[in-house]
Amino acid sequence: MSTTPRASAPASPPPDPGASALLTDLYQLTMLKAYFEHGMEQSAVFEFFVRKLPGARNFFVAAGLEQVLEYLEGLRFGDEDLAWLSGQPGFDGAFIERLRALRFTGDVDAMPEGTLFFPDEPILRVIAPLPQAQLVETRIVALLHFSSLIASKAARCVLAAPGKLLVDFGLRRAHGAEAGLLAARAAYLAGFGGTATVLAGKRFGIPLYGTMAHSFVQAHESETAAFAEFARAHPENTVLLIDTYDTEAGAAKVVRMMPQLEREGIRVKAVRIDSGDLAEHARKVRRILDEGGCREVRVFASGGLDEQALAALAAAPIDGFGVGTSLVVSADAPGLDCAYKLQEYAGVARRKRSEGKATWPGRKQVHRVLGADGKLERDVLALESERQPGAPLLEPAMRAGRRLAPAPAMSELRARMLAQLEQLPAPLRSLERAASAYRVEVTPALKALADEVDRRTREVAER
Amino acid sequence: MSTTPRASAPASPPPDPGASALLTDLYQLTMLKAYFEHGMEQSAVFEFFVRKLPGARNFFVAAGLEQVLEYLEGLRFGDEDLAWLSGQPGFDGAFIERLRALRFTGDVDAMPEGTLFFPDEPILRVIAPLPQAQLVETRIVALLHFSSLIASKAARCVLAAPGKLLVDFGLRRAHGAEAGLLAARAAYLAGFGGTATVLAGKRFGIPLYGTMAHSFVQAHESETAAFAEFARAHPENTVLLIDTYDTEAGAAKVVRMMPQLEREGIRVKAVRIDSGDLAEHARKVRRILDEGGCREVRVFASGGLDEQALAALAAAPIDGFGVGTSLVVSADAPGLDCAYKLQEYAGVARRKRSEGKATWPGRKQVHRVLGADGKLERDVLALESERQPGAPLLEPAMRAGRRLAPAPAMSELRARMLAQLEQLPAPLRSLERAASAYRVEVTPALKALADEVDRRTREVAER
Repeated sequence: MSTTPRASAPASPPPDPGASALLTDLYQLTMLKAYFEHGMEQSAVFEFFVRKLPGARNFFVAAGLEQVLEYLEGLRFGDEDLAWLSGQPGFDGAFIERLRALRFTGDVDAMPEGTLFFPDEPILRVIAPLPQAQLVETRIVALLHFSSLIASKAARCVLAAPGKLLVDFGLRRAHGAEAGLLAARAAYLAGFGGTATVLAGKRFGIPLYGTMAHSFVQAHESETAAFAEFARAHPENTVLLIDTYDTEAGAAKVVRMMPQLEREGIRVKAVRIDSGDLAEHARKVRRILDEGGCREVRVFASGGLDEQALAALAAAPIDGFGVGTSLVVSADAPGLDCAYKLQEYAGVARRKRSEGKATWPGRKQVHRVLGADGKLERDVLALESERQPGAPLLEPAMRAGRRLAPAPAMSELRARMLAQLEQLPAPLRSLERAASAYRVEVTPALKALADEVDRRTREVAER
Repeated sequence: MSTTPRASAPASPPPDPGASALLTDLYQLTMLKAYFEHGMEQSAVFEFFVRKLPGARNFFVAAGLEQVLEYLEGLRFGDEDLAWLSGQPGFDGAFIERLRALRFTGDVDAMPEGTLFFPDEPILRVIAPLPQAQLVETRIVALLHFSSLIASKAARCVLAAPGKLLVDFGLRRAHGAEAGLLAARAAYLAGFGGTATVLAGKRFGIPLYGTMAHSFVQAHESETAAFAEFARAHPENTVLLIDTYDTEAGAAKVVRMMPQLEREGIRVKAVRIDSGDLAEHARKVRRILDEGGCREVRVFASGGLDEQALAALAAAPIDGFGVGTSLVVSADAPGLDCAYKLQEYAGVARRKRSEGKATWPGRKQVHRVLGADGKLERDVLALESERQPGAPLLEPAMRAGRRLAPAPAMSELRARMLAQLEQLPAPLRSLERAASAYRVEVTPALKALADEVDRRTREVAER
């Protein structure tokens, strides 16, 4: 269907788009209307999974569950949204009243954030009356997709730069406000040391890092004046950007200024290099600092970095990196082929059979088997009702619309993630695609269910 | 500097992150503190531009100005944000009070949304006291970057599918709530016919399109029952998804059902195909519909489409397309190399000289020269003070912190954009990179200023 709505003119700044139940696809509402009218409100099971690994990727990192649970707990159609919707063609008063009363009353099971996962493995399952479970599709996909995308990218950076401080510098190139905020969170969860995004510090308690821009140096009459004024404004924690004019000359100025700054009680913590051949500049700058008695001053680098560049700079005398665009847009794979699919309705397993898009039916569980060395050996994709060796990865997160536990601390999620990275076998830690993919076995019972669903589906398709 | 803040625990759902002045890089605040303390509050000129065309791109489309003006008019630090910030190390009470009083009081000139632009051309200029002009960098870059990115991508889709209806289906893969909303707007501005994102219809008056998901068909006992129930819930405007089981069988069912549906006053507007070989299926489906007397029923296709796929489907009997992931993440180029740079401070032109990142200094204007055929011939990048042939593209948009005109209607922006696409010379309309780039001349006066700034900068760098 198509409609040409009139825009509503907000008197005050518009509210958070992520908090509106209208941040969804129109087809969710058109389907809901049909479900309500025909009484199709029995229990439905949907699962979210990613179909395949893009490019050189070997694994994914689950993230975004916290945002999904917040969304589900807060889901309701506001009066203003409903007033607008009731003026659109195709939606009658009875439908609007059903929406007004709608709350999410279902159950959620999910892999905890920071869990490694692989193609076809569900990381979240929703069980709820069909209209509810359907309505939440768009936002659940958006939240899990984006946070898992960025956490997976960030984990590659962490693997590429062991022992180095990594800081998210990506807010300005992130795709909008929520992306910037959640990218900072996903990167920290995956092992970054912090972010430059102030609001992410406020919302999530993530450590904040910041220095100065080239414009700061340019606005002053000399680089030395810029350094001195910045240092005096931030005596406890000064980082100086030294590449505005000439990187090595900038480092030499820092050395010359150091005695005076120290007399004033100022501690220069680091210098930052943001352009040119970072390895070459870092070596020269390190030598200038060391020979000038500034061994404590660390070298921080930024500028167009991704995990490949970080790996190439592993031997350079650089203590930390700012990673921007490549991280927050997941430049090598800005979107994942993921889906939230109906697996069961009214107690009967379902399976999508569209060409190239078949899915495993029914309620599933993922079991992880570790080898004797403590590394990941294989996963088993099974029916939820099967007993299998290995730890089940999907855990209860919400029952009857209420979360079962408060949000875990970011530090807890981050620790889980870093422990999981330790479990990754060497071939999967590579930035290149491993010769053989991680083993995910499908149990005979699940295969048998798929066959049974296919048989039934062929009958249905004839009708 | 680095700090480890405590997260603030919101009692109610958190507000729009895009409305918080803390949605910025920490370095903006550290620089502001130094500027305030040292009285560096004279007038600064910053310009936003993109450095280079990525991949196969031949042009950009300016978008996001409306969001920038809204942001600047509404800019203020809220009490809650300031209370949190005052608890962070490095920010004293005097600084917090300066932030509390801060408003944007500057001027903005910009290319209207929907204007074509090319590398190194400023599309927006801010003139304001240095702390204000600096602070707004992060959000201005984020807003202009994302909307221009998506509008540019959408314009390629429009060029690839002349005369076809294009609909944004991307919300679930967009990078967060604001991205989904603004992608719908940017795509419509660039010539798409509408979006599936309901909230974009409400906020911007964009036409809405929606059908059903495979889950809808799967949840019913038969495809025929699913079609009939959907049609009865949406009799005025029915689109049926026919590829859940067997695409051609689905089309045949629609034909068989048509007499009964027509008796009930139901109009089937279109069928949708979402998988397999879309061209092949569309031909077969078109034949089935035509032979069944359903010539009025249109064929709509979706599923992993980008501008190359649209071009390849140009001859297929498909009336419209849903475009999702590739559009909203700008898959071939998910980030642009763009910057917001200091061009002048306290009346003196500035230029960044970092390796590989030099910029043109001073206040600039872009003049567009059309050929005798009405097509774009060349642009001239000049000092603002120069007289040049051709229409100046940067226009006054805000003075002393107040916008000069209300937001133009989306229809007006869209009409401008489509007229501009008509002005594109044939080589630049191609999906491949044109053999020679569009000509952007730099005036002798601007080159002379750059040389002068370089001479001065060499002196400054010595200090």
